Amino acid sequence: MTTDPAPQPTTTDALWNSRFLRACRREPVDATPVWLMRQAGRYMAEYRSLRSKVSFLELCKNPELAAETTIFAAEVLGVDAAILFADILLILEPLGFDLEFSKGEGPVIHNPVREAGDVAGLRPLEDVSALGYVYEAVRKIRDGLPGNIPLIGFAGAPFTLACYAIEGGGSRNYEKAKTFMYSDPGAWDALMTVLTESTARYLNAQVTAGAQAVQVFDSWVGSLGPDDYRRFVQPHMKRLFAAIDPSVPKIHFGTDTGSLLELQRDAGGDVIGLDWRVELDRCWDRLGPEVGVQGNLDPVVLFAPLAEIARQTRRILGQAANRPGHIFNLGHGILPHTPVDHVRALVQMVHEFSAR
Amino acid sequence: MTTDPAPQPTTTDALWNSRFLRACRREPVDATPVWLMRQAGRYMAEYRSLRSKVSFLELCKNPELAAETTIFAAEVLGVDAAILFADILLILEPLGFDLEFSKGEGPVIHNPVREAGDVAGLRPLEDVSALGYVYEAVRKIRDGLPGNIPLIGFAGAPFTLACYAIEGGGSRNYEKAKTFMYSDPGAWDALMTVLTESTARYLNAQVTAGAQAVQVFDSWVGSLGPDDYRRFVQPHMKRLFAAIDPSVPKIHFGTDTGSLLELQRDAGGDVIGLDWRVELDRCWDRLGPEVGVQGNLDPVVLFAPLAEIARQTRRILGQAANRPGHIFNLGHGILPHTPVDHVRALVQMVHEFSAR
Repeated sequence: MTTDPAPQPTTTDALWNSRFLRACRREPVDATPVWLMRQAGRYMAEYRSLRSKVSFLELCKNPELAAETTIFAAEVLGVDAAILFADILLILEPLGFDLEFSKGEGPVIHNPVREAGDVAGLRPLEDVSALGYVYEAVRKIRDGLPGNIPLIGFAGAPFTLACYAIEGGGSRNYEKAKTFMYSDPGAWDALMTVLTESTARYLNAQVTAGAQAVQVFDSWVGSLGPDDYRRFVQPHMKRLFAAIDPSVPKIHFGTDTGSLLELQRDAGGDVIGLDWRVELDRCWDRLGPEVGVQGNLDPVVLFAPLAEIARQTRRILGQAANRPGHIFNLGHGILPHTPVDHVRALVQMVHEFSAR
Repeated sequence: MTTDPAPQPTTTDALWNSRFLRACRREPVDATPVWLMRQAGRYMAEYRSLRSKVSFLELCKNPELAAETTIFAAEVLGVDAAILFADILLILEPLGFDLEFSKGEGPVIHNPVREAGDVAGLRPLEDVSALGYVYEAVRKIRDGLPGNIPLIGFAGAPFTLACYAIEGGGSRNYEKAKTFMYSDPGAWDALMTVLTESTARYLNAQVTAGAQAVQVFDSWVGSLGPDDYRRFVQPHMKRLFAAIDPSVPKIHFGTDTGSLLELQRDAGGDVIGLDWRVELDRCWDRLGPEVGVQGNLDPVVLFAPLAEIARQTRRILGQAANRPGHIFNLGHGILPHTPVDHVRALVQMVHEFSAR
């Protein structure tokens, strides 16, 4: 049960007919919609200035500031969708994990899962109000955004959350997480089940609060081969996607997933995320006509001269060939030192080069 | 010109007919050959003990110790090939780079390439004798190895070396290297040319000293998409492979290369390395019958219980289906905390499960 007293906002005609939501439904658009992962972030002077006053977690937990950050980035860049300012790890706190974002080191979980017994104590999030500050940010963002700009809610996928929960932070090889998975499949299944059920409730509460679409970030799943994905991840992803409010489009994102795309599509999602290591046209052919695709510029290309950015943008748009259902994005998030003027130029190029 | 006065050793019948070299030539074998990247390394107590007395660079530059380390690992594990103990970055020293292996931080290059002018001063390695300690190690290893165990020489590929030379060490996103590549293709080309010509000479000197095969490690090339690989890397890889002594088999290795495999095959190599993210059977079908494949167990599986190691070993051997030309290996190097008994068990399993 959510503490949110507001009714689910009606999706207005302007939102329904927005480029982004039309593309999610694989309907024709006047120009390819574009938004960028981490479009509100450290590469922006305004963001760095704000972060000099509040910590990352304070910013996430302050609905007013999170909303301002979200809306400012979307407006400055001229993108076709806003994405909630939050972090995929926030959900771990109400599950009992002690989460800290330490300077320079990234996220740290002080009480990681290390054995089956650590999982037995976990319970799926029953009362999603523990993350009420997120839904409050969603409401404020929806109120403040232009009426034709959809808001994307999001969550981390169970595998990626499980990696953080077991590793206790970022990792290069996911040695502890995979060893746990291989050594105690029962405990792994229990952990994934808790994460899956909690994530579904969390995403649905974001939709209730006013998100028009959701993206599931399985950022680290590309560390698995297809056989492991099939055994240890796909069943949970199927249950997750089946449990998300059917009224909103779902984007299924990962990186390093060139070998997993068909398995991810079968797990769920209206739009499949592609990173820059793959060719958009080939992958879309493999995925078939029942899904859209999102991607897939290398985030590092934004450091290149404008002529190179234009070349690569044209290449990707050429591969999509105006086929309905393409959402332009990077293959992963914007990097911290990216020049802001290049990001704005990219958004303009996508619109200009793809105008029908 | 090499200072090596020894004639190239004759490849004996025992070597020629070894499982490993037969597999490189895609000839039938009595059991699938197996060796493991970083098979001599920190996961072994004997190696850690040695390293408590000498630094990593001292070990690389001491032919006696490098040979002992190489031979010991091959014999203890019962693998079908030995690989020279060395590091891909050694070649950077005679090119003028100030290389250090700092404790805990990995390799550091104190004078990285940062602008076109830094490349103009570089010259291809004319006199390969600057790396004479490597060829001396090769000779000692060849002398000390059993007569039916081939020795694999190796070098880093130009792209991977260029990344280190520009980043000044390891990197997560290769932001500096790719930005250099996109921003000044002429300087990039000059840098890659120096690295390509030097690497060819270095590998040929290893063959002259007694290596029966070579592996080219393009460990970081999977950070590029196919279009970038075609533009910035493939021409150099073609020239590199064309310049290597045609009498020895060449293994072309990379990670994260699921989208690049055909382009890598077209660049050269008798055997193409596959990491664990891909399915061996599908990839071999894509690559066609003119090349062998090497791989592709996830290094983290070696932390799993023996039953899981057996399951995944059987899966990979099943995908290879006794097709001549499969060399069993990990998808990347052995990780530092890997249990030695699991590594030995893996080698036995490969031989037992694949016995014809």
